[in-house]
Amino acid sequence: MTTPNPELDPELDRFWAVVPAGGAGTRLWPVSRNGHPKFLRDLTGSGRTLLQDTVARVQPLVEDRVLVVTGARHAEAVRRQLLDTSVPTENVLAEPSPRDSMAAIGWAAAVLERDHPGAIIGSFAADHVIGDQDGFEACLVEATRVAAAGHLVTIGIEPTSAATGFGYIEMGEPLPGFPSARRVRSFVEKPDAVRAAGYLAAGNYRWNAGMFMVQAGTLLDLLAVEHPDLAGGLRELAAAPERMDEIWPGLQKIAIDHAVAEPAAAAGQVVCVPGTFEWDDVGDFAALAGLDDADLVVQGDSALVQAIDSTGLVLPKDRMIAVLGIEDVVVVDTGDAVLVTTLAHAQRVKEVVTALQQRGRQDLT
Amino acid sequence: MTTPNPELDPELDRFWAVVPAGGAGTRLWPVSRNGHPKFLRDLTGSGRTLLQDTVARVQPLVEDRVLVVTGARHAEAVRRQLLDTSVPTENVLAEPSPRDSMAAIGWAAAVLERDHPGAIIGSFAADHVIGDQDGFEACLVEATRVAAAGHLVTIGIEPTSAATGFGYIEMGEPLPGFPSARRVRSFVEKPDAVRAAGYLAAGNYRWNAGMFMVQAGTLLDLLAVEHPDLAGGLRELAAAPERMDEIWPGLQKIAIDHAVAEPAAAAGQVVCVPGTFEWDDVGDFAALAGLDDADLVVQGDSALVQAIDSTGLVLPKDRMIAVLGIEDVVVVDTGDAVLVTTLAHAQRVKEVVTALQQRGRQDLT
Repeated sequence: MTTPNPELDPELDRFWAVVPAGGAGTRLWPVSRNGHPKFLRDLTGSGRTLLQDTVARVQPLVEDRVLVVTGARHAEAVRRQLLDTSVPTENVLAEPSPRDSMAAIGWAAAVLERDHPGAIIGSFAADHVIGDQDGFEACLVEATRVAAAGHLVTIGIEPTSAATGFGYIEMGEPLPGFPSARRVRSFVEKPDAVRAAGYLAAGNYRWNAGMFMVQAGTLLDLLAVEHPDLAGGLRELAAAPERMDEIWPGLQKIAIDHAVAEPAAAAGQVVCVPGTFEWDDVGDFAALAGLDDADLVVQGDSALVQAIDSTGLVLPKDRMIAVLGIEDVVVVDTGDAVLVTTLAHAQRVKEVVTALQQRGRQDLT
Repeated sequence: MTTPNPELDPELDRFWAVVPAGGAGTRLWPVSRNGHPKFLRDLTGSGRTLLQDTVARVQPLVEDRVLVVTGARHAEAVRRQLLDTSVPTENVLAEPSPRDSMAAIGWAAAVLERDHPGAIIGSFAADHVIGDQDGFEACLVEATRVAAAGHLVTIGIEPTSAATGFGYIEMGEPLPGFPSARRVRSFVEKPDAVRAAGYLAAGNYRWNAGMFMVQAGTLLDLLAVEHPDLAGGLRELAAAPERMDEIWPGLQKIAIDHAVAEPAAAAGQVVCVPGTFEWDDVGDFAALAGLDDADLVVQGDSALVQAIDSTGLVLPKDRMIAVLGIEDVVVVDTGDAVLVTTLAHAQRVKEVVTALQQRGRQDLT
């Protein structure tokens, strides 16, 4: 492993972690709610919330250089959770309304460009889990150096299966001067099973974890190529924060992948640093179950679960959950709702949320 | 239908319903508990408990001539439930300990033989449901007449499927002088699927619902043939109730089927009155689901259930139950426990109860 050492890796002093904390997480209902989204919950039984886990994971490299960008309605809860870390609560940027990931990360980039010229930002979604901290840090150290050399870096996770739930990164030639970095030929959308098997066999495809590392100024300059109004608006906002109410609502809603990563890749300006660490986005209960090798995964107090001839995932709360004779079952108990489904239907949980909203039960969503 | 009319059917004046209310109902956990067994619960959504339904079903024929035999620990709860009926609470016989169905029904028979010579008793378990009240009453009117003629009568339910969960009654020759009564050749145990199909095809087999009608004295006389000590003990108990603590613990533990019905059938002394009404014993959640034609049966407040692409049975309590993409699911919510299984495993629910007891969670069983 590469031990982080600012004297050996001076670029690390310029490295800021940006954590976009958004998304309702409706596929994780009833645990994740509009008013209490998944990143504010301890879904993995780690004793920390997904957000706190994300912060703790990057702090060995960035110390307190963490910015969290979240919706205004969650800003107070995010600040409270940061009290358990050494990150100052003023490092929370509260968006007046959701304007997608480019505005969120771009706003943080503009603020850092203003206050810390030369800052390198890495974006790390607040709802990912990573299995190998050492491998993660080693990957980021190389990515910081590549970003310091002026590239837009994306972390590419070595696929362990022909997953169809992630986008892929097609890697090309090695980048001279770096141990593992390779140029990105293209980003590819979530494939079907046949294509995914092909990517896995080809060996030069990586899962797109949505983790970017790039100098703040470089990011905004790349954005300015195709979306000059958005790049300009973000820089104006950083220069005149008091104009938030005027500027923010006019910013273009677009994902960072479409706004910057894909066009830059097409122009040969993106580099992939491959990561071999275990990684997953906690997108649904199947992902949550997959974090553990047990036949029946219990996230919570296992004394509250009585399982007979059953596999799957149980999240108990404060009453006994008995499951009998069901494979791949998912049972999630909260104070006011119980979800019962199977891993195969984990992606469809948002249908329940939609149905409840149609019945006027917004109180439960 | 035959309208009950004591002037036309003077035997009805002698007809007493005996309701044995026992059994823990562990296959209906967590609704049914040791301290609060299934017959004390409203499991069918009728607004009355199974016990109250049973009493209400026979009252058009017997008025207040109902005796309930139950365990001492449930006697108070049974009396409270009788307050909602016109049956006097002193009509509850409290067994000091469980001594099986012959002692329970035989005790009631001995008490009635003492107080109401010539009484005809019909035994009706407290956990059955019946779909066709008129057909039920018509059947009992004929059965009362047959019992008054000195026979031991069993009600035989016309099978609607080749069920393997019930015992069967093989009927022989018609009994002269009665519209539908036929002699019983034999009682047969729960068959396998092949035998059950044969019984259904043969046409002269009926489900054994465990409903007997017989004069109280006749029952005890039949019992005395093979079990004179038991018959004598029950008559002693009726003559000297103050000797309960001395007599009761010595009574033989045996089911009425083995003690009387099968030997009497072998001797040609049992008559079947066929019933065409819908009937089921609420033995497990599959039976409960089968009482309704809906794909997804909700016993309780359907506003508390959000089902998508699911079939089976849900018993909600006071929180939302969402089921997604599971066939034949069973979800039962109570204040302190949630059971999740499928109809196919309904018979195995008692395994959960056993497992919880082994874990020291008697508080939940």
